[in-house]
Amino acid sequence: MSTLTNRLYRLRSRPEGEVTADNLEWLEEPVAEILDGQALIRTHYLSVDPTNRVWMSAMRSYIPPVELNAVMRGAGVGRVVASRRDDLPVGSFVVGLTGWQDYCVADAASEDMSFTVLPDPLPAPLPAFVGVLGHTGISAYLGVEFGDPRPGETFFVSAAAGAVGSIAGQLAKRRGARVVGIAGGAEKCRYLVEELGFDACIDRHAGDWQKQLDDATPDGIDVDFENVGGEIMDHVFGRLNIGARITLCGLVSEYNDYNGDNAQRGLRNVSQLLMQRATLRGFIVFDHVDRYAEIIGQLSLALSAGTLRSAETVVDGLENARHTLNRSLAGENTGKVVVKVSTD
Amino acid sequence: MSTLTNRLYRLRSRPEGEVTADNLEWLEEPVAEILDGQALIRTHYLSVDPTNRVWMSAMRSYIPPVELNAVMRGAGVGRVVASRRDDLPVGSFVVGLTGWQDYCVADAASEDMSFTVLPDPLPAPLPAFVGVLGHTGISAYLGVEFGDPRPGETFFVSAAAGAVGSIAGQLAKRRGARVVGIAGGAEKCRYLVEELGFDACIDRHAGDWQKQLDDATPDGIDVDFENVGGEIMDHVFGRLNIGARITLCGLVSEYNDYNGDNAQRGLRNVSQLLMQRATLRGFIVFDHVDRYAEIIGQLSLALSAGTLRSAETVVDGLENARHTLNRSLAGENTGKVVVKVSTD
Repeated sequence: MSTLTNRLYRLRSRPEGEVTADNLEWLEEPVAEILDGQALIRTHYLSVDPTNRVWMSAMRSYIPPVELNAVMRGAGVGRVVASRRDDLPVGSFVVGLTGWQDYCVADAASEDMSFTVLPDPLPAPLPAFVGVLGHTGISAYLGVEFGDPRPGETFFVSAAAGAVGSIAGQLAKRRGARVVGIAGGAEKCRYLVEELGFDACIDRHAGDWQKQLDDATPDGIDVDFENVGGEIMDHVFGRLNIGARITLCGLVSEYNDYNGDNAQRGLRNVSQLLMQRATLRGFIVFDHVDRYAEIIGQLSLALSAGTLRSAETVVDGLENARHTLNRSLAGENTGKVVVKVSTD
Repeated sequence: MSTLTNRLYRLRSRPEGEVTADNLEWLEEPVAEILDGQALIRTHYLSVDPTNRVWMSAMRSYIPPVELNAVMRGAGVGRVVASRRDDLPVGSFVVGLTGWQDYCVADAASEDMSFTVLPDPLPAPLPAFVGVLGHTGISAYLGVEFGDPRPGETFFVSAAAGAVGSIAGQLAKRRGARVVGIAGGAEKCRYLVEELGFDACIDRHAGDWQKQLDDATPDGIDVDFENVGGEIMDHVFGRLNIGARITLCGLVSEYNDYNGDNAQRGLRNVSQLLMQRATLRGFIVFDHVDRYAEIIGQLSLALSAGTLRSAETVVDGLENARHTLNRSLAGENTGKVVVKVSTD
């Protein structure tokens, strides 16, 4: 194995704003020989998630920050190419924290290095296992369950064209709710309404997005599936109905500001959570591993039945991962974003 | 009855900041003769609550704003002095929305004019029925129930020396939680710790209150009973443990800013609700009328047993009500604040 070269990113410094090449260094290193209790995984698809940006910051989060000089943490799907671990047979496809690299040495003794072996034959294309049948699809499912939209209620979702939002909106629609999204750009909105069945979608780049949002939610908002935070969340708080539920899944508008301090604008409408007797619940998908199998089963059924659709943005080349993350944080991608690393 | 004079406050304009004599005009008017379906109630004690300030603003709240030129809305206890309503016999003590006035004409046809007749003989002094055995005590009870502090957990309460906070802290202590409060001034803190059994209390006027708060919550915060909002709430968010519960009962730090727009500083640590998978629940006591009898029963038992203590600040004279509200909003009162209007 020692002839293999690993291309990878190491976190050299914590970003302020966009992630620069100085923050995240692109390197080539030899791949180490694997020892007993280790397997070597070839990354096929790397999942690019806004929360990666949180992991680069020093802020108090749901997971320890990536240590400086460590390989950047990231979820991925890959294939076991060498193994001295009984649970990871050579040739099997696996999903887990591959990191931002070509090859991952998966040590059984490391907590981060538990991988799930995928079924053979694969029931869906590989990117789905970090998307609609992976952590983002499961997040959507759990968040909709927490928000509990009922028939006739209005369900609102921000970053609606994203990996989580696009699934969440469809799941809420299946429950009989009126589904309204906000997304960046007319094409995303067209896609959500015409192809995914959203009732309405607001273009957040429109100068009058607040008015459009108000017009699209004439009966107020009963459930807010929140992925963005900031001024969108604040405006939505002003539209909440009595007894509204807010599923707090992400705050992507803030992530570029996380660098130890919190420099963002601040929410001013939290009073509406009191006035409307709302319940807000923050959740992290990784707390719910015991639900994964059941939820993946539900999502798979819906996909097979054609009642749920998934969109992916596939970017070719590990060397484009950093740029792709920056684009995602700027709202420039649609659906689940993966970097194709290899198809060997 | 026409010889009676009613002293009262009418809301002439919506305050910006403190409530001025121009906002809330002090007048004398004759008392009208009562008609069929009406009773005349002599106010004995007027309840002064920070939320009165919300009612004066035009903001979207849990109750319609007080209309301009109307008598100021307020809860009170009083005695029926004349009656053409079967449900309100002359001589009985009642609690309800008497308004900021000497005499209230209670019309059975008006939704706001439902009054609860108190038991005879009275099981507690009259002010208790707008305090520990009234809406503030019931708020404390419900909020502690929602927050569900468990033995060994840390329960934090802001405006801890207030009508709600002082009861909430004691109820949480009875559940076996470590109880930490924040209140304005060393004397309030001494009272809460030495007389009400709080484990610690932070003086919010201290220059290093944040550090004191951190030191007093070495194991983080599991339940935040929030009455204040603003920078205190924001700091507390940074202390939350995984799975924390926030009971949002009030946001008194903001109320003087409510005048149609929301000019307050804004919360910057809402991300911690996500990162710590916290649940925040806003509630309004008036939604839970079906629980009142049960809760008043529980609180009465605890009072009788001496395991719950109530503090009151009694201010003499209806003409001092406006000033008393301003003082309450500035954090200058302790416990339940009532204005003694009459003891006739």
